Amino acid sequence: MRLELKAFTINRTRLSERMTELSKIGQIGETGVARLAFSAEDKLAVEKVQAWMKQAGLITRIDHFGNLIGRMEGKQSTAPVLMLGSHIDSQPYGGRFDGVIGVLGALEVVETMKEQNIIPNIPIEVIAFSDEEGSRFNKGLFGSRGICGMLEEGELDRTDKEGMTRREALTQFGCDPEKLSESEYKKGSIAAFLELHIEQGPILEEKNSPVGIVTGIAGPLWATVEMEGFAGHAGSVPMSMRQDALVGAAKVIVALQELTSKDPSAPTVGTVGSLRVFPDSRNIIPEKVSFTIDLRDINIKRRHRLEDELKSKIDAIAHKHKLTYTINEDTNSEPRYCASWIQDMMENEAQQIGIQAPKLMSGPFHDSLALSYVCDYGMIFVRCKKGISHNPKEYATIEDISLGTELLYRSVQQMQKRLDNIY
Amino acid sequence: MRLELKAFTINRTRLSERMTELSKIGQIGETGVARLAFSAEDKLAVEKVQAWMKQAGLITRIDHFGNLIGRMEGKQSTAPVLMLGSHIDSQPYGGRFDGVIGVLGALEVVETMKEQNIIPNIPIEVIAFSDEEGSRFNKGLFGSRGICGMLEEGELDRTDKEGMTRREALTQFGCDPEKLSESEYKKGSIAAFLELHIEQGPILEEKNSPVGIVTGIAGPLWATVEMEGFAGHAGSVPMSMRQDALVGAAKVIVALQELTSKDPSAPTVGTVGSLRVFPDSRNIIPEKVSFTIDLRDINIKRRHRLEDELKSKIDAIAHKHKLTYTINEDTNSEPRYCASWIQDMMENEAQQIGIQAPKLMSGPFHDSLALSYVCDYGMIFVRCKKGISHNPKEYATIEDISLGTELLYRSVQQMQKRLDNIY
Repeated sequence: MRLELKAFTINRTRLSERMTELSKIGQIGETGVARLAFSAEDKLAVEKVQAWMKQAGLITRIDHFGNLIGRMEGKQSTAPVLMLGSHIDSQPYGGRFDGVIGVLGALEVVETMKEQNIIPNIPIEVIAFSDEEGSRFNKGLFGSRGICGMLEEGELDRTDKEGMTRREALTQFGCDPEKLSESEYKKGSIAAFLELHIEQGPILEEKNSPVGIVTGIAGPLWATVEMEGFAGHAGSVPMSMRQDALVGAAKVIVALQELTSKDPSAPTVGTVGSLRVFPDSRNIIPEKVSFTIDLRDINIKRRHRLEDELKSKIDAIAHKHKLTYTINEDTNSEPRYCASWIQDMMENEAQQIGIQAPKLMSGPFHDSLALSYVCDYGMIFVRCKKGISHNPKEYATIEDISLGTELLYRSVQQMQKRLDNIY
Repeated sequence: MRLELKAFTINRTRLSERMTELSKIGQIGETGVARLAFSAEDKLAVEKVQAWMKQAGLITRIDHFGNLIGRMEGKQSTAPVLMLGSHIDSQPYGGRFDGVIGVLGALEVVETMKEQNIIPNIPIEVIAFSDEEGSRFNKGLFGSRGICGMLEEGELDRTDKEGMTRREALTQFGCDPEKLSESEYKKGSIAAFLELHIEQGPILEEKNSPVGIVTGIAGPLWATVEMEGFAGHAGSVPMSMRQDALVGAAKVIVALQELTSKDPSAPTVGTVGSLRVFPDSRNIIPEKVSFTIDLRDINIKRRHRLEDELKSKIDAIAHKHKLTYTINEDTNSEPRYCASWIQDMMENEAQQIGIQAPKLMSGPFHDSLALSYVCDYGMIFVRCKKGISHNPKEYATIEDISLGTELLYRSVQQMQKRLDNIY
């Protein structure tokens, strides 16, 4: 099933070398990367990629959101653009692949097109979105939401750990935060968006597939549950008289796990990731426990049904253990589906190059999520080792990345034909 | 079932007034008390009680452990002593009753004997043990373990939050830490020990009984369990592939609760009071969870059987969720039984004054625990509101405390007769 080297259109060596070079900017340890949004390292990385874009013959600019954009002009220069990209900022203790392969892969695609003397009908833009990760200002997808006109009130006033506002960080980065609206894309001006990304999950590895085609991004339901009982000495309150909030919380955790595991064919996932006990003393019965719920499903109806079932369970558990409870909904996102015509086309192209590319849902967010509100989009996932991401141990082979990039290249050629018919 | 006022031998008014006066030393808020061991407040309280002891005609001393001892001489001054008491130090955010009723109650007993012109055959000592709570140096029962020769290596070097060692605190309190051994009681020199204490649990309230007779102090098994799985993005790892340490921990919490609730007639209690999740992030599958186990039972065989069952459960749960685990035993105390002849005698005396005093186990530690290693001991519990203790909301009525003290007085008279036959 392995594609022969000679069959590749894209230049694996160039792609690999650029990945290595970029990973040295903000390198931590042997394999880690720390390129916080709008940091000096982030700026150096943007300048590096900008230089490569110029070298490939693209017209480049850094917009007021801090997005780096390289444009390959089309025959119809006023037509909506086909946008390709991802991000190159990282988590504070991140890996070398998250985001990066989507930017360098997109650049590789257009550079190959240049070399093949392909002039697209509509323009193609390669974009490295700013601050996808959101770890610095605790809210991500900044650049991608920015160009889509989706920023919220007060986003520029958010501060990092040092107390610097995003406004100040943007200015320091060379942007003008007063001119953000100039950098927004007008409605209809993006024809479609394609993103190549590492899976950040273990499914492709499990399926022994180098790449996969994303069906959509499952929006999570995020809630915080607080259960309250009554403290007491761990040695003196009989079991039958207890109102132990941690026993209640434990039963909810088990219930969520069971509810979301019931149908093994569904991609439903449910997680309690964070939990706090009060007073958290070994010989005091827990009085109060608060914990998070993360529930995702590409099928929103099924997710709603599971939410209802979980709420009934919480109520029954609280009743049984004489607890009171509150459920606060922190985020309630809807799933955003990849355009089926793009999925079909990608599947067809994968077959052409002899690889089986399973379809899978994306649990994590991506810049594509923002773009999904303004245009059709598609995503290609690349297998990553053990599903590890946001960690220096993040790893994907250059073979898999190259296959993903080749699939992106071929998909872009098909997209061009398809979009040519439209515009 | 209420004892008529005239039937009381002890002086309820005096007892009540002293309790109120003592509660003002270190008072916090309306009803709270903060008298940390060896603090200025603790010293003031000791001096206050010492003055009352002198007033009652006792010979008083503060030993090198900081214990306050008031002695009522017996006809046989060289015979082993009948010791009565508890402690007057408190938790940092404690109540007015914990320990205090055992010291003032004991003082009330001997003062009443003086008034009744009763001269005991063997001496009686009223003792206020130092540092029962252990909150300042994180290890309690200091004075009671001290006189029993049970202190461990390095106890004087333990430091409080300000970095002061117990040695320094003792010196500041007026003790000589170099002379501790002079204050130890010789083997056989304590005939028996009686302690009156609030229940710190809800059983007597539930049974509508003002006082209870303690069968023993259930030593806890304290363990720390750590379960380890594998972190991953909450949105991208399918349920079937997860190694979620919090799901494992939740199942153990539920298992412990079920195991210890199985036999409602047994006083077995099991608690997970403290729990930590790593990395504790709402969208990351928990990699590591550590939590405490507190398991108590007056029946050590049953406790051992439950320990075994729990360990099997932990192993099965870990296996099912592909987790590794460790179990560290932090404390493994055996139950210490109250002398059955003392229990019987107390039961008999309770019947004499027309109250039903149910027998019950003590989950919490008391100074009695240390004394149990050197002599026979007995304990009387007084009902406390909702079982609340170690909290300013701690509450017991003066009626119940007086009944407990009256029972202590009558028990002491019986003990005297019994011990007179021995010595």
